Amino acid sequence: MNEGIFEGRIRRTQAEMQGLGVDLFVAGASSNLFYLTGYPPRGDERLLALVLPKEGEPFFIANLLYRLQVERLPIGEKLYWADGENPYALLKAALEERGFKVCKVALEASLPARFALAIQQSLPGSSFVLGDALTEGQRLIKDESELRAIRRASAGADEALRAVLKRGREWIGKTEREFSEALTAEMRALGLEAYGALIAVGPGAAEPHHRTSDVPIEDGSCLLADFGGRVEGYCSDITRTVHFGKPEPEFEKVYHIVLEAHLRAEAAARPGSSLGEVDDAAREYIAGQGYGEFFTHRLGHGIGLDVHEGPSAVHGEKTVIHPGMVFSNEPGIYLPGRFGVRIENLLAACERGAEALNHFPRELIVLD
Amino acid sequence: MNEGIFEGRIRRTQAEMQGLGVDLFVAGASSNLFYLTGYPPRGDERLLALVLPKEGEPFFIANLLYRLQVERLPIGEKLYWADGENPYALLKAALEERGFKVCKVALEASLPARFALAIQQSLPGSSFVLGDALTEGQRLIKDESELRAIRRASAGADEALRAVLKRGREWIGKTEREFSEALTAEMRALGLEAYGALIAVGPGAAEPHHRTSDVPIEDGSCLLADFGGRVEGYCSDITRTVHFGKPEPEFEKVYHIVLEAHLRAEAAARPGSSLGEVDDAAREYIAGQGYGEFFTHRLGHGIGLDVHEGPSAVHGEKTVIHPGMVFSNEPGIYLPGRFGVRIENLLAACERGAEALNHFPRELIVLD
Repeated sequence: MNEGIFEGRIRRTQAEMQGLGVDLFVAGASSNLFYLTGYPPRGDERLLALVLPKEGEPFFIANLLYRLQVERLPIGEKLYWADGENPYALLKAALEERGFKVCKVALEASLPARFALAIQQSLPGSSFVLGDALTEGQRLIKDESELRAIRRASAGADEALRAVLKRGREWIGKTEREFSEALTAEMRALGLEAYGALIAVGPGAAEPHHRTSDVPIEDGSCLLADFGGRVEGYCSDITRTVHFGKPEPEFEKVYHIVLEAHLRAEAAARPGSSLGEVDDAAREYIAGQGYGEFFTHRLGHGIGLDVHEGPSAVHGEKTVIHPGMVFSNEPGIYLPGRFGVRIENLLAACERGAEALNHFPRELIVLD
Repeated sequence: MNEGIFEGRIRRTQAEMQGLGVDLFVAGASSNLFYLTGYPPRGDERLLALVLPKEGEPFFIANLLYRLQVERLPIGEKLYWADGENPYALLKAALEERGFKVCKVALEASLPARFALAIQQSLPGSSFVLGDALTEGQRLIKDESELRAIRRASAGADEALRAVLKRGREWIGKTEREFSEALTAEMRALGLEAYGALIAVGPGAAEPHHRTSDVPIEDGSCLLADFGGRVEGYCSDITRTVHFGKPEPEFEKVYHIVLEAHLRAEAAARPGSSLGEVDDAAREYIAGQGYGEFFTHRLGHGIGLDVHEGPSAVHGEKTVIHPGMVFSNEPGIYLPGRFGVRIENLLAACERGAEALNHFPRELIVLD
């Protein structure tokens, strides 16, 4: 990636700061830092931050441990501290030298309280707001190289699921964890940086954010797989629900309701519509079928460098869809103690509608 | 784990709160929450928090998505919010109902700014401090079941390294990433929840926190492996540096200096000494050998539910060693552009000294 890309992103962030009256933006080791400078989102309990003033050049505060990595970054002055030293004194001195004392500071949303509170204490009298809005507008609209990375990450997830499901009923008796690890291994072999795959069997699938465990895959159970991986930092995210052995009638009924809701949301995702309307398209259908109370989460979320980034596809969300936006379409119905069904694709908004980035079949797959 | 353990931990935390004049402690999905309630450290951008008043019962704020998991916890009232609702209004109402308005609030150190700032705004006039100190004292001294888990996690890491290094010179031509994934796979097969293994080859090993990449393992290069995994939530952490082919003389010299520093620190780690003195034992030796400026980090860190937890073994740290404390002993020397050497064991302080929890050999291993 050429340095000009970072330069442009920094300048656009500064323009947002000026518009919002923010004097300083502090970003820790996060996807925002990666977006603005190319520094990978990797940190520890030692303060590592980019400090961006509303005009002029940013600077880094980093522990000496990270010097070789930070020194390479194309942007900003670098200030280092050693274990045992106080990074906040260094920050304060650097700010005073640059004429900042009492000001309006935006903090990156993922910055841990251990840093956020210490920064607040070093700048008494200053006011603090969240900094998401400073980059969200830019990050929302993906350029061609970003879309290419998300497409590759999505194709890799599709292919990994295909490879793992090829083993069919061999999975019976194996555990959620084994299925999860097999998916992860396939994605890695395809060159994706995989994050843990969420696998839920039977009643576990009724917990939308189930924790994958040693529960065995049984004949007569559904299996929900929600997973993804990164390519060049950009994420994919897909969910499919399959069934081992013949499903009970209500499972099939619920599956088809979720699928229809998913298809309706996809059709509703057009430039000019709001994200709230896309959620409504799926939610109204599910409610009309009598399962409204069991669709317990938003329809979807933005995605890019973070698996979840704003804004959400949720009732009332007014953000209007523009070409280049990427978000998940993942309606679900969860019957506690029994089963759950979720079907998720990523959608990339284009001029005329939305293109699904996943191509793994959405029809019910019964492994019997 | 029986519920009484959590009950006891909660009461001890409340005693600390009373001692420090803290009215409320807010912990997000973190190792502290796991320690206090058994809830696994897994969250997303939706507020999930335990709110513990200085006396009486705590309560949870969680998104409906997590209801099935939160409902199972043995402790506290549970308050839920749905996507699209405002969890901070719920928090504020719950606090007012309990008589809290303007108070002193301790925030868990890992709580992201997105939650921390919103909580600050919901409680205008209140003061905010970091909450680490409320649990650090308890967490510092591991009980028998915690030590058993760390021992098993350490033995698993030792065994995984043995298995991977058995392939010897077959690794030449493979990449850092492949070596890392092999270690991870071995740990998983041994039942550990592995986190990414840091593997650094040649000059990459001179970056103490190198990012594992597709750099190939070459004959004539060192390989530094820093990794670990969890058993029942508790972490291990080990580093070894090996060499493929005959090392240059300065590599061998540096290796033996690091090893001697490591052994001196181990001998200095006795109940009654301070953690600062343990760092000094290693650091003074390395400085005396002329490499002081190349040992760029603290000697070690506490470990338990977090890979890094306080306090550090760093110059000036006055915390006195007590039986049950577990910390890393990891001196290193890093020659930029050339190579790096680090040797790390975990130490568990006992009545008479410190017991190394890793048993993988520390002598230089040359694969030729």
